[in-house]
Amino acid sequence: MESKQVDVAIVGGGIIGSSIAYYLAKEKKKVAILEAQQIGRKSTSAAAGMLGAHSEYKEFQHLYPFARSSQLLYKELYEEIKELTNIDFEKKNGGLLKLAYSEKEKQELESILSLASVEWLDCKEVREKVPQLAVDIVGAAYLKEDVHITPLVACNGLSKGAQLYGAEIYEYTRVLRVEKTGIEYLVKTSQGTFIAKNVVIASGVWSNYFFQQLGLSHEIIPVKGECVAAINEGTPLHYSIFHDQFYIVPRNNNELIIGATKKWNDWSEEPTLDGLEEVIQKAKRMVPEIGKMKWKRAWAGLRPQSYDGYPFIGEHPELKGIYFATGHQRNGILLAPATGKMIRDFIIGSPVEKEWLDAFKVDRNMFAYGGGK
Amino acid sequence: MESKQVDVAIVGGGIIGSSIAYYLAKEKKKVAILEAQQIGRKSTSAAAGMLGAHSEYKEFQHLYPFARSSQLLYKELYEEIKELTNIDFEKKNGGLLKLAYSEKEKQELESILSLASVEWLDCKEVREKVPQLAVDIVGAAYLKEDVHITPLVACNGLSKGAQLYGAEIYEYTRVLRVEKTGIEYLVKTSQGTFIAKNVVIASGVWSNYFFQQLGLSHEIIPVKGECVAAINEGTPLHYSIFHDQFYIVPRNNNELIIGATKKWNDWSEEPTLDGLEEVIQKAKRMVPEIGKMKWKRAWAGLRPQSYDGYPFIGEHPELKGIYFATGHQRNGILLAPATGKMIRDFIIGSPVEKEWLDAFKVDRNMFAYGGGK
Amino acid sequence: MESKQVDVAIVGGGIIGSSIAYYLAKEKKKVAILEAQQIGRKSTSAAAGMLGAHSEYKEFQHLYPFARSSQLLYKELYEEIKELTNIDFEKKNGGLLKLAYSEKEKQELESILSLASVEWLDCKEVREKVPQLAVDIVGAAYLKEDVHITPLVACNGLSKGAQLYGAEIYEYTRVLRVEKTGIEYLVKTSQGTFIAKNVVIASGVWSNYFFQQLGLSHEIIPVKGECVAAINEGTPLHYSIFHDQFYIVPRNNNELIIGATKKWNDWSEEPTLDGLEEVIQKAKRMVPEIGKMKWKRAWAGLRPQSYDGYPFIGEHPELKGIYFATGHQRNGILLAPATGKMIRDFIIGSPVEKEWLDAFKVDRNMFAYGGGK
Amino acid sequence: MESKQVDVAIVGGGIIGSSIAYYLAKEKKKVAILEAQQIGRKSTSAAAGMLGAHSEYKEFQHLYPFARSSQLLYKELYEEIKELTNIDFEKKNGGLLKLAYSEKEKQELESILSLASVEWLDCKEVREKVPQLAVDIVGAAYLKEDVHITPLVACNGLSKGAQLYGAEIYEYTRVLRVEKTGIEYLVKTSQGTFIAKNVVIASGVWSNYFFQQLGLSHEIIPVKGECVAAINEGTPLHYSIFHDQFYIVPRNNNELIIGATKKWNDWSEEPTLDGLEEVIQKAKRMVPEIGKMKWKRAWAGLRPQSYDGYPFIGEHPELKGIYFATGHQRNGILLAPATGKMIRDFIIGSPVEKEWLDAFKVDRNMFAYGGGK
Repeated sequence: MESKQVDVAIVGGGIIGSSIAYYLAKEKKKVAILEAQQIGRKSTSAAAGMLGAHSEYKEFQHLYPFARSSQLLYKELYEEIKELTNIDFEKKNGGLLKLAYSEKEKQELESILSLASVEWLDCKEVREKVPQLAVDIVGAAYLKEDVHITPLVACNGLSKGAQLYGAEIYEYTRVLRVEKTGIEYLVKTSQGTFIAKNVVIASGVWSNYFFQQLGLSHEIIPVKGECVAAINEGTPLHYSIFHDQFYIVPRNNNELIIGATKKWNDWSEEPTLDGLEEVIQKAKRMVPEIGKMKWKRAWAGLRPQSYDGYPFIGEHPELKGIYFATGHQRNGILLAPATGKMIRDFIIGSPVEKEWLDAFKVDRNMFAYGGGK
Repeated sequence: MESKQVDVAIVGGGIIGSSIAYYLAKEKKKVAILEAQQIGRKSTSAAAGMLGAHSEYKEFQHLYPFARSSQLLYKELYEEIKELTNIDFEKKNGGLLKLAYSEKEKQELESILSLASVEWLDCKEVREKVPQLAVDIVGAAYLKEDVHITPLVACNGLSKGAQLYGAEIYEYTRVLRVEKTGIEYLVKTSQGTFIAKNVVIASGVWSNYFFQQLGLSHEIIPVKGECVAAINEGTPLHYSIFHDQFYIVPRNNNELIIGATKKWNDWSEEPTLDGLEEVIQKAKRMVPEIGKMKWKRAWAGLRPQSYDGYPFIGEHPELKGIYFATGHQRNGILLAPATGKMIRDFIIGSPVEKEWLDAFKVDRNMFAYGGGK
Repeated sequence: MESKQVDVAIVGGGIIGSSIAYYLAKEKKKVAILEAQQIGRKSTSAAAGMLGAHSEYKEFQHLYPFARSSQLLYKELYEEIKELTNIDFEKKNGGLLKLAYSEKEKQELESILSLASVEWLDCKEVREKVPQLAVDIVGAAYLKEDVHITPLVACNGLSKGAQLYGAEIYEYTRVLRVEKTGIEYLVKTSQGTFIAKNVVIASGVWSNYFFQQLGLSHEIIPVKGECVAAINEGTPLHYSIFHDQFYIVPRNNNELIIGATKKWNDWSEEPTLDGLEEVIQKAKRMVPEIGKMKWKRAWAGLRPQSYDGYPFIGEHPELKGIYFATGHQRNGILLAPATGKMIRDFIIGSPVEKEWLDAFKVDRNMFAYGGGK
Repeated sequence: MESKQVDVAIVGGGIIGSSIAYYLAKEKKKVAILEAQQIGRKSTSAAAGMLGAHSEYKEFQHLYPFARSSQLLYKELYEEIKELTNIDFEKKNGGLLKLAYSEKEKQELESILSLASVEWLDCKEVREKVPQLAVDIVGAAYLKEDVHITPLVACNGLSKGAQLYGAEIYEYTRVLRVEKTGIEYLVKTSQGTFIAKNVVIASGVWSNYFFQQLGLSHEIIPVKGECVAAINEGTPLHYSIFHDQFYIVPRNNNELIIGATKKWNDWSEEPTLDGLEEVIQKAKRMVPEIGKMKWKRAWAGLRPQSYDGYPFIGEHPELKGIYFATGHQRNGILLAPATGKMIRDFIIGSPVEKEWLDAFKVDRNMFAYGGGK
């Protein structure tokens, strides 16, 4: 294969890479997505799809305005992509209930409760909304705007949208190396070489190699999450339920997505029996009758996490034109639009919010932001 | 198990039975759906989901107003069920293109073209809408209102809606016999006996036994249809394409549903290699590039067909309170709402359109209506 | 379809019906298997396939000699069917370990330990064979001859063997009714009528209807079992492990079959989340490291159980030529050959072991044999 | 993760890498298999598993003695691995029939027919063996010893065997780079670094990067093959059938494996509709009734092919201790044992057959051996 010349080569065709491609292609940039397997079939398709901006407020406050802006971008994208590609993200508008089982847990929700569009519901109120909830809850924070979508569908919508604006998608194309040549980069792949003015590394947990190959010592840790889908034949669930890092999310067609474990530094992409046991037990704690539901399927995905818990979204400190967009841990679906827009702004030279620039930059002090595993 | 007392026992939990249950439960009737396997997993889930009222206009003119009324009912149902159950039928609004490859085929479309909301597009016009179409077409009838939905999702929405209005759903419950006892019926099942004022047989191709067991000699012939799903990674298809009984229907998420063969009196529920070969060849005739697309899955379903091609929707000629709702052949998804409403009207004593009553009644002259295989 | 004339119509194409067909076709009887779905895809394919004759010794002593003779028949069948059909039952010869976690449990194994070919192994000895076993076991009964096979493969082998001897297999053919006509029976099916000198009901849990329809009040209760398959990437397991009704059975290719729950009178054919949780917990009790293994799939099957726990294998007390072969509960795979031979002997007029004839006859005193749920 | 020290790091856990690991571990070498995904799940599991040494005789005569020796090694391995790991390769002994449809095709078989253990059968004779064959064949070469196995099972057997001899298996471990350091190599992976005295590149089509990264310009071309599995409910097939690069191979349990297309330089790992159509048509040419069989599944795999058609099995011309074992095109399953043994002999310093050493060496004249695409 001859070399292909592009403006931007994007390494990774998950929802982050697809969103970046969409925003850049819309600006008439010549874009290639280079995906080692298939678009959206790794961590993206494993995610539940909650757009939980408020839900993350407490732990990662620097993330909140970014997450919130991304959540709002989804509103436009939803319509825009549907019109353009005929693909509907399968948005569900119910919102999210963050349960408290004790006064202490209620107090922990306080910072979220201070936000507009978040409301406290006591046990009786929340069980009116979701009669299946465990009776021993104190109440729940109701995050009205934390809707959810189906991640693989959204990723396909974004990549197809990018394609319709001229982007090219190369599946089964593994990037082996990025080399500087004058003012451009050679992106060497299993399918031949691309010559790119800009390169964006958006490979989730598989980005480590590129940090290393490009002279940086950053590390992305995989945090494996195991999930189960069950069939809800009883009263429909109109809300996502959340407690202690576990969630129950209703998809279309009676399916409940239940997850997820957190296995630090585990690269295996399949669920274990221990993982399924834990998921089932946590789900029964929230909705006891879930034990009676039919099991449908189980799977696992790898969340890409940095040491301080914030993503890397920014330019390589020395190699101009090399960008990173990875480390979104459990928020990759939510943060995809804002990430795509931010990388677009870098590349087309538009201004970027100072706070985000600093918080997510590649050469930041990793211990300044206080995020946790 | 003790006997359960209900107003209406519905034999069969496909989309016909689910729609009947929904309309009756909404009227506060006590309804039980008795399904031998699982809700919607037989012919319903095998269907493509085109709501092709106009598409059937030529061959079965008596069916058209009924089909059209059903199509319109879907508009209400779509919103109503989404609100009630959180289930979205995954409606796609593009409409349907009925291709003509010759002047003769164009002439055959004339009767459809006389309908409001149907428009003739010549080759150039139709290929503007769908650039992938074969270049040798003369043009196409554009049936704007023949949208499509995802059948299993719609069926689940209707049955869950019924349930929320009080209906009970019994899966894995095989009905073995219906016996008259005084003014009621005993419905004997693998799970025990139901006592019902009314019984509706809505078992698709598996209704034969009940005709026979209840003293009628009607026959429903299975017309097996084999289908393939492909992944469309190219330009999205915004329309369903139809030619010579074969169709290509775009679902969400880049999937194209392609079908279907017609194997008369074939009870096997799996596709054969010959069937897949035929489906692929027909699809390539319409959209040549489909041959390059990725194969995703293959399946088969059994369409229930009467000898004259019209459904049976009506009361048993002698046993009051026994109703049939079967024989919808390739139009089961489309006709489900109107069928549900019609059976409801019988049972609650509301008037039913005279034309439909005559055309679909169980004791009609099977050779009067001129439908074809 | 015209009526077909056969010597024996077999209702049900699971492993019981397939074995009966094989033994009869080999004797040149004209046989038809009438299967409502597909050969072997219901309870047969859900089974683990242990040929555990000795394992059942304690609870159902009348069954033991029958089970043991069936186990021995498998040895011949294995070679015979492989030669004839090219199908290999995937036999694994390791044998079965019945664990004891306490002296009391050890005592409960005493009756089994009295059998030849059963040996007591203390904790150290058994952990030499299976180092992964929980350290807190007292020991295990080692049942050397309780090998296992893959049930669906064996069922396909038997039905294909029958076919090669002239039997005909009708899939998707639901039997609706059996009617006496002179000295023969009309077997009415969804595909037409068969005229048969003999009819064998071998429909597992779905036999109830035929008992009833043929004037008997017997009942077969479904005892649902939920199972999980895991991938064993560690030390291979050469033995089946058994404790407290749960088992771990190694299949070819690193797969461990783990099961099974016992849900009395549950007709649903899918696993629930509670069921999977229980299976996982029981398996971890036996082999703690199983929790770390990869989950592969989950499923459920329905065991057909009579009130006294013994199968029905015998002639209808009044209708000569009608036979039943059902109610084998968790031992259907094991008992298939002896059941097939016994029904063959009835039909060709060969003598049948008196003890078995009495213990399994249809019109026995259901409370005499003392089996338990 | 700290660095791990090993004797041999094997890059790739397909059947080639697994066989190498087995032979080396048996010689007490400390071995690590580094597999980017899961053991045997790429090209290995896509293969049909014919051990067709004779079948390849004509085109690649230098390969024949190597292939034949590998075929004979399988006989030992089969028993050895079954004993050691409890895994049975599912060997089927029928042999292979190479069909001729014309006198010309018969003549093309002449060189094969000159081999011992190959026999010519005329149309009548071959149709006695396989009555379903097309009537218009002239006859077939009967290759008695070209048995077949199930590749994924064999691969799992070999890797588990290696493991039981002390090898370690690292799944989801992508090798990023191999670097020389003194007399050893650093093998940098997504999971950390291995320090290895020897490195074997056994990555099939994904080996290109390592040739390049290690200073060589060799290229492995993917030749994609698309396959279909059908269910044979008729007379069992006891032989593999072969014609014009397409084959029909009977697996256990009534399954026929049918393949395979040859798509030169196609990296996509899924079948296309065109591919399936071609496979079905070729299969019907051999066994017309195959069109009536039930479709079961479809898939694709990538055969690794060098320009001259021979594998690369040998040491890097400059970097001592680096070995390649790739490029086995359609014969990877067949050649795995001989390849494993040959690499073992290199590493333990045993002599290697001169003819093979020359034919497969990495720095050979690629145009000397006359193999074809």
